[in-house]
Amino acid sequence: MRFLHTGDWHIGKKLHGYDLLADQKAVIRQIFVLAKQEKVDAIVIAGDLYDRSVPSVEACEMLNQLFIEINWQEKIPVLAISGNHDSAVRLSTGMPWYELTDFHLYTKLEQSFDPIEIGDVQFYLLAYFEPVAARAYFHDDSLTLTTAIKKIIGQMGKSFDPGKKQVLVTHFFIAGSFKTDSETSVEVGGLNAISYDLLHTFDYVALGHLHSKNAIKKGNARYSGSPLKFSLSEKDDQKGIWIIDSSDLNPQFKALTPLRDVKELVASFRQLTDPDFYQQLNCEDFWQFQLTDRTIIPNMMNQLRAIYPNIIGAQRISRYRENVQLEKLKERKNSPQQMLQTFFAEITGDDLTKRQKYWLDQALLQATDTEKRG
Amino acid sequence: MRFLHTGDWHIGKKLHGYDLLADQKAVIRQIFVLAKQEKVDAIVIAGDLYDRSVPSVEACEMLNQLFIEINWQEKIPVLAISGNHDSAVRLSTGMPWYELTDFHLYTKLEQSFDPIEIGDVQFYLLAYFEPVAARAYFHDDSLTLTTAIKKIIGQMGKSFDPGKKQVLVTHFFIAGSFKTDSETSVEVGGLNAISYDLLHTFDYVALGHLHSKNAIKKGNARYSGSPLKFSLSEKDDQKGIWIIDSSDLNPQFKALTPLRDVKELVASFRQLTDPDFYQQLNCEDFWQFQLTDRTIIPNMMNQLRAIYPNIIGAQRISRYRENVQLEKLKERKNSPQQMLQTFFAEITGDDLTKRQKYWLDQALLQATDTEKRG
Repeated sequence: MRFLHTGDWHIGKKLHGYDLLADQKAVIRQIFVLAKQEKVDAIVIAGDLYDRSVPSVEACEMLNQLFIEINWQEKIPVLAISGNHDSAVRLSTGMPWYELTDFHLYTKLEQSFDPIEIGDVQFYLLAYFEPVAARAYFHDDSLTLTTAIKKIIGQMGKSFDPGKKQVLVTHFFIAGSFKTDSETSVEVGGLNAISYDLLHTFDYVALGHLHSKNAIKKGNARYSGSPLKFSLSEKDDQKGIWIIDSSDLNPQFKALTPLRDVKELVASFRQLTDPDFYQQLNCEDFWQFQLTDRTIIPNMMNQLRAIYPNIIGAQRISRYRENVQLEKLKERKNSPQQMLQTFFAEITGDDLTKRQKYWLDQALLQATDTEKRG
Repeated sequence: MRFLHTGDWHIGKKLHGYDLLADQKAVIRQIFVLAKQEKVDAIVIAGDLYDRSVPSVEACEMLNQLFIEINWQEKIPVLAISGNHDSAVRLSTGMPWYELTDFHLYTKLEQSFDPIEIGDVQFYLLAYFEPVAARAYFHDDSLTLTTAIKKIIGQMGKSFDPGKKQVLVTHFFIAGSFKTDSETSVEVGGLNAISYDLLHTFDYVALGHLHSKNAIKKGNARYSGSPLKFSLSEKDDQKGIWIIDSSDLNPQFKALTPLRDVKELVASFRQLTDPDFYQQLNCEDFWQFQLTDRTIIPNMMNQLRAIYPNIIGAQRISRYRENVQLEKLKERKNSPQQMLQTFFAEITGDDLTKRQKYWLDQALLQATDTEKRG
């Protein structure tokens, strides 16, 4: 059998305040097209379907509609779990009815022990859970995430059919993975990390949680990554999905093309506002500019926004060095000349020229004069 | 065929800050028991399943679970619509899958034109809608609620089967109905009222919106009323559901018993705190007391709450007359004696006795002395 592995849709997520619903709908429909082209027997969604536990009504409407399209209309089985961003209870609305059309939306620990069998594969769907849920389920207050996962996988093992392949679908941070800026940092790292070694009993582990497909490459564990770039740190990521055939379990990557990409560009303001230059670009993309300019550009962001409506930022290459500590500056009891020279150097990376120093002295003289006369 | 008519469940509603989830679950399960006893072919729920467009996660979990019990497990068909308190989009999550087990949850105007046929009855499910939705649907900006309803009912008429009975399920305010305090007042009244005359083409109109079963008794139109009392103004209401048999379409009322009732009692504080008295009462009920006392009772509410944990209020019978206008009181430049006499009269309904006047004079004298010396 063949299946498609995706995850971290984060329906309703915004990028620097911009609504991504249209982008998400377009890219998920691309996933559906790929599923049909690749003749998969199931679409696996490894959690974080929504971006928030209480999604907006527009987000709800869109996800409901997408499931109707792919499962109710196209009749492609869907195997999905809730992630840490989803409310398990809210997301599970509609279960168990979804089961009637092979749409398996698992949100509870106890559902993970009964595999869904499609062809020669047993799928174990382990939704994201907090250790406290495992403690309640197993009546064992000593459980940590690691010992809970061990116990869960041990229990799953009892139903392993030696004649079949086993696939785990889950949503956690695997220790040693690389994160991007669009995962919430409190949810990655030490306490909630699972060692990859716990997962080796599976033939394939379809992971969700981290947004880069390259976050981990250990054995047969893969993050699908998000279908869209959700932060500037992902600008060079190639987003896509995995197609897995149970015959070799060798995941094949299929790229997705966003409606609007997240891009960064180094250029001068003059270039960016030159039609000959910007007509070469997709101005609708989410642009972050690194400006080479040093002079003051009045009303800069508004001028850029008029050309690049979805601009997410513009900063000078020679911007404030991040280690400048304002407090230290305050402590220095410098002359106005020294303070302005330091300020100029922080902003531009250059010292004042002889001419600039002359202007500065004249300006300060005039200001002091005015002050005295005032 | 036989059906049960209920509505206005308002799952998640609170009564004077008290959570009603347990009460709602208990009373809705009573409805399910009645449905089985009465061997109905369908349960009709005429809108306002939730109290809020974004219900709490506990409310979601409960309603999901109740539908699983009655439709998925007991296999009783359910015909439900969204009311003005529901978010049509959020509530519709799980459709169209619900249809597979005869759980028809209609939330959109366009769904109202295809009747659901059970036995010899055609059910038309018209969810609550704002005139703006009808204007968009019919591409007619001139539509008011009344003209929209006329148009909708006209269109429904085209599929009327003369060999069957027609039942309309809807959620509106019918002009001339009586309201209670638990409906939101902005949603009842003139603009959103529908004339009963529009509905005469139906053999039975299963209404939701108003919380008293007696809100209207015109022809075959009935409000089921809420299954629980949601305000003190409903204290004398008998809550319940209607059982309708298509042979005579004569609704039979079946009463429901709440876990905790809403009650009012006139008594003295001494009685209310006397075990011989309160052991005759269900102290767990939501009690509103009219106290006959006139003297000051320190810490009164806390003392009452210790006995009546779900008390919703206690007030003196001889309480502030509502037409007392504080501003007027302020305008009168009375002596302290006069002001206190007026205040005493407002509170107790009595004038000061000779002795009380003496006490007052002494107290004021002392206060004035202290002031002067201070």
